[in-house]
Amino acid sequence: MKKSSNFTAKLTGLRNLMAEQKLDAYIIPTADPHQSEYVPDRWAHRIWITGFTGSAGTAIVTHKHAGLWTDARYFLQAEQELPGSGFELHRLKVQTQAEYLDWLCQNLKPGQVVACDFWCFSYAQLRMFDQTLSAHQLVLKDSGDLMDLLWEDRPGLPLGPVYEHLPKFAGAKREDKLKRLRNSLYWKKTDYLVLSALDEIAYLLNLRGSDVRCNPVFLAYMVVSKEWAGLFISPEKLSPALKQKLMDASVEVIDYQKLESFLKELNPEARIQFDPSGLNAKLALRFQPKAIVEDSSPVMWMKAIKNEKERQHIRNAMEKDGVALVKSFMWLEKTLKKGKTPMESEFAQYIALCRSQQAHYVGESFDAIIGYNANGAIIHYKPDVQSSAKIKAKGILLVDCGGQYLDGTTDITRTIALGKTNRAYKQQYTAVLLGHIALAQVKFPEGTKGIQLDAFSRQYLWNLGLNFGHGTGHGVGYFMNVHEPPQGFVSAWNQRGQTPMQEGMLTSNEPGYYQEGHYGIRIENLVLNVLDSRHQDQRYLRFETVSLFPIETTHLDHSMMHKSAVIWLNDYHREVYKRLSPHLDAAEKKWLKVKCKAI
Amino acid sequence: MKKSSNFTAKLTGLRNLMAEQKLDAYIIPTADPHQSEYVPDRWAHRIWITGFTGSAGTAIVTHKHAGLWTDARYFLQAEQELPGSGFELHRLKVQTQAEYLDWLCQNLKPGQVVACDFWCFSYAQLRMFDQTLSAHQLVLKDSGDLMDLLWEDRPGLPLGPVYEHLPKFAGAKREDKLKRLRNSLYWKKTDYLVLSALDEIAYLLNLRGSDVRCNPVFLAYMVVSKEWAGLFISPEKLSPALKQKLMDASVEVIDYQKLESFLKELNPEARIQFDPSGLNAKLALRFQPKAIVEDSSPVMWMKAIKNEKERQHIRNAMEKDGVALVKSFMWLEKTLKKGKTPMESEFAQYIALCRSQQAHYVGESFDAIIGYNANGAIIHYKPDVQSSAKIKAKGILLVDCGGQYLDGTTDITRTIALGKTNRAYKQQYTAVLLGHIALAQVKFPEGTKGIQLDAFSRQYLWNLGLNFGHGTGHGVGYFMNVHEPPQGFVSAWNQRGQTPMQEGMLTSNEPGYYQEGHYGIRIENLVLNVLDSRHQDQRYLRFETVSLFPIETTHLDHSMMHKSAVIWLNDYHREVYKRLSPHLDAAEKKWLKVKCKAI
Repeated sequence: MKKSSNFTAKLTGLRNLMAEQKLDAYIIPTADPHQSEYVPDRWAHRIWITGFTGSAGTAIVTHKHAGLWTDARYFLQAEQELPGSGFELHRLKVQTQAEYLDWLCQNLKPGQVVACDFWCFSYAQLRMFDQTLSAHQLVLKDSGDLMDLLWEDRPGLPLGPVYEHLPKFAGAKREDKLKRLRNSLYWKKTDYLVLSALDEIAYLLNLRGSDVRCNPVFLAYMVVSKEWAGLFISPEKLSPALKQKLMDASVEVIDYQKLESFLKELNPEARIQFDPSGLNAKLALRFQPKAIVEDSSPVMWMKAIKNEKERQHIRNAMEKDGVALVKSFMWLEKTLKKGKTPMESEFAQYIALCRSQQAHYVGESFDAIIGYNANGAIIHYKPDVQSSAKIKAKGILLVDCGGQYLDGTTDITRTIALGKTNRAYKQQYTAVLLGHIALAQVKFPEGTKGIQLDAFSRQYLWNLGLNFGHGTGHGVGYFMNVHEPPQGFVSAWNQRGQTPMQEGMLTSNEPGYYQEGHYGIRIENLVLNVLDSRHQDQRYLRFETVSLFPIETTHLDHSMMHKSAVIWLNDYHREVYKRLSPHLDAAEKKWLKVKCKAI
Repeated sequence: MKKSSNFTAKLTGLRNLMAEQKLDAYIIPTADPHQSEYVPDRWAHRIWITGFTGSAGTAIVTHKHAGLWTDARYFLQAEQELPGSGFELHRLKVQTQAEYLDWLCQNLKPGQVVACDFWCFSYAQLRMFDQTLSAHQLVLKDSGDLMDLLWEDRPGLPLGPVYEHLPKFAGAKREDKLKRLRNSLYWKKTDYLVLSALDEIAYLLNLRGSDVRCNPVFLAYMVVSKEWAGLFISPEKLSPALKQKLMDASVEVIDYQKLESFLKELNPEARIQFDPSGLNAKLALRFQPKAIVEDSSPVMWMKAIKNEKERQHIRNAMEKDGVALVKSFMWLEKTLKKGKTPMESEFAQYIALCRSQQAHYVGESFDAIIGYNANGAIIHYKPDVQSSAKIKAKGILLVDCGGQYLDGTTDITRTIALGKTNRAYKQQYTAVLLGHIALAQVKFPEGTKGIQLDAFSRQYLWNLGLNFGHGTGHGVGYFMNVHEPPQGFVSAWNQRGQTPMQEGMLTSNEPGYYQEGHYGIRIENLVLNVLDSRHQDQRYLRFETVSLFPIETTHLDHSMMHKSAVIWLNDYHREVYKRLSPHLDAAEKKWLKVKCKAI
């Protein structure tokens, strides 16, 4: 097979380089120098060497073993994609944990050398790696990017053009954002804040780009002082007019490659602030430890709280998205009725087409997951044009997709039955729906953490002895990355789990259930944290469900439904119809009316 | 006032000693050298100097300020007890956090010295103190026990006799427990395990004592090696027969005071294991850092999982406790009907009397909280004979009490209305009850953490914009301390919040609501983690509610009740009647029948 010989050559090449440099293990993360979740193609090392295309995973190569560690969302996908690559699948028990370090500690001998490219690991990660490995007498070494020497047709630095996100959409001027940011620096006595998260830089400057698939960001660093700001970017990405606008806001444009030398020349007495879990180790290690002010990024916190205008735009974007979905699902129904069997990828394309007819559409916010039957159980499945399954008028279809609009980012999942379903499916679907509703309905003191709320979405599944292997929700950007820190709903004490909920945060509510080899169920809406009430000094929040599209009610186990869930569901459908119908033609309205019928 | 002059003298005395030793601040914890939650009178330093008798709090004395930090459970009590002491109340935002350290960092100048008695702080605590203080250029110093020089009538080392907890109650022989413990040492390559938690030593050796009020423990340390074990205890506490039994189990009895010199003589190459949050800093600092194996105590984990015999005994003890409570509450009703107004303390005594008529009763498991009206809002209120309120045939009464039996420890809370109640009370009471039931009903994968479950008990209060300022539940010992680590239900990522739930754990389920100045509401039962089902490799647990006494149903807001809660409540009352009635006379049965009536 071509695949396997090709991959064998890659592994052999890497091992030869490792032998030359006397390295016993090499870690290949899914990361770029900005700790982006989705990386520009230039940094798709892990895909290149393993063939596994899932969006999360870490590969480890030793002279005897090649392993890929990924989490439950990707087990099935990895099982399908890894054979022939020489890499063996290691199943992560905890999604975010570096369990491959334990493997290294157990499988290497004292004195052996573990290497990686320090550009692609955060300072915090490297420090943790070093602690764990050195406790087992293993040596951690910066080998630079070994694969650069092997990867002949490696893409260059992305050069997508950068454009302005107009203040009427952003809801705040870049000057005002910089001012708010500088206030926070004042209190920390910070001289220079170093920003490396692409979405933070885009947000702060009201700019957008197209260097990362589906994420409207561009490759850059930023340094902000009390009076000055520098944007480190390939200058050809900016038009002269945009450069002028940045200069007007006292933002100097400097070449992307010049950051290292710029940092070298800073006053060694200056206090340098950065997020240790964001800035890469290569840069962070340039600073004197005494000079460093470690803190989560103030821009991340600003960005997480959607301002009033952003909130209004989000509500509007959800209407457009709902309209596009009505058209898409009607098309699917019609197509199936005609006896046709559209491919999953075809449906994904049709949805994108319907979205593109809406105002201010920019693109999809992630590769749509259209999972027919067994494919629906692959949590981050992506149908490709070649291998995609044909959708028939029976079975279960999971549709998880989202759009990027200038006025908002959407992310929505619906599961529909295309034929008859059995009792087990109805129970599972109803348990997922009841969990979704329980979380959507909860009211809670501001500051409650995601880990405290996550189980509300699982309780009905737990009652059946079922569960799902991913968090219930992630933060969502505003015309920005669809996965946005810091908040979320998860079972773990990670950043998502421990972030206090605040008014204005936008989060997904997406419990699911996956019957491996058969089907997947997931129901996802986005929820906005809004003020519910005040009692003495305590503010109570609730979730405003902002996504607008009917949830299938024709395959419920009605014996499991309780009164307050029925009320929520009927209220939701009334709202969906009210908000979407003005934008629909008669046939579409009729279709939606049926889908929104009260139960 | 006598109180205030007395307390002024204590503070002045302490400040004089501080001045002599050039100390700028002195920390007085609520702690003994064993990190006991409830300390023998000898270590009641904090009560002695502040007059505040609550069971948790830390005092700080500087030359200008004297402050007491305690948590929400004790705010009202501290407000009542502190005036005249010279100490000012500081309200902790987070129950377990050392917020007084922040105060020290903000109020002292670089170079100033913070002192405390290293015997009374755990190694982990001291390390954290040192980190925080040194980051602010403050110096942490072991001053020894300054108050020993001031406290003239300070009690000596407690000398309560130690007795055996017979295997028929313990459910396992001490030899077998030691064997299981040693297996865990083997895997850690530990040479010596140092135990200092009093309940762990009592559990491990099947011994009990009476050195701490309400907790059947005795002052001792223990050292366990692969072949040997030493019990460091005042030898006069043990009978010759008991000493012989210990020798038969290869446990050597050594004087309590000789531990320090014993540790000094250990092979410096030996690996010493201890729980850094348990062993005091004075002893822990004796070891070479290289020799130390830090880990939570394996005995704590053994003890937390009640064995089958313990579980059966617990169920039996709950019946006895329920019978005692039937008699007690009947007495209260009768007494009030006669137009009498018994004191809170009188009712506490009557309950203890009824318990003492049950088999194997040893004493109360904590000072009963009988809180009439406003006193019920003082979360850890303790009525004393002098100041206790009179209970009348109107208002709200909160009763939280528990017993120590050779076959189990109980802890139960009921809230009853003694007259008419208004709509607000009924809503609050129903919200507390619904929260209690929601937690009691939940099923969850084994390993779920307390922080994930805690919010189930708060959701109905949150709906009303209400909450309560304590955790929902704590672990409970088996004829042992009523507060037992590690597990619990809390909103925080502390030990209780992060401990995975396992089969056999016994925990309280006690949501509440407190209307300051008016009344308190709390409903508490103990729940045992039992296996519900297995699905593939995952075990699912549920809570078996083991406490048996009717929950008041005559002041509910029925509009808030939902079907599954009604079913739970009626099932519970059916079980209570079934289990308690065989032990009751005709009049008692009749009374119970009414209380257990289905709603």
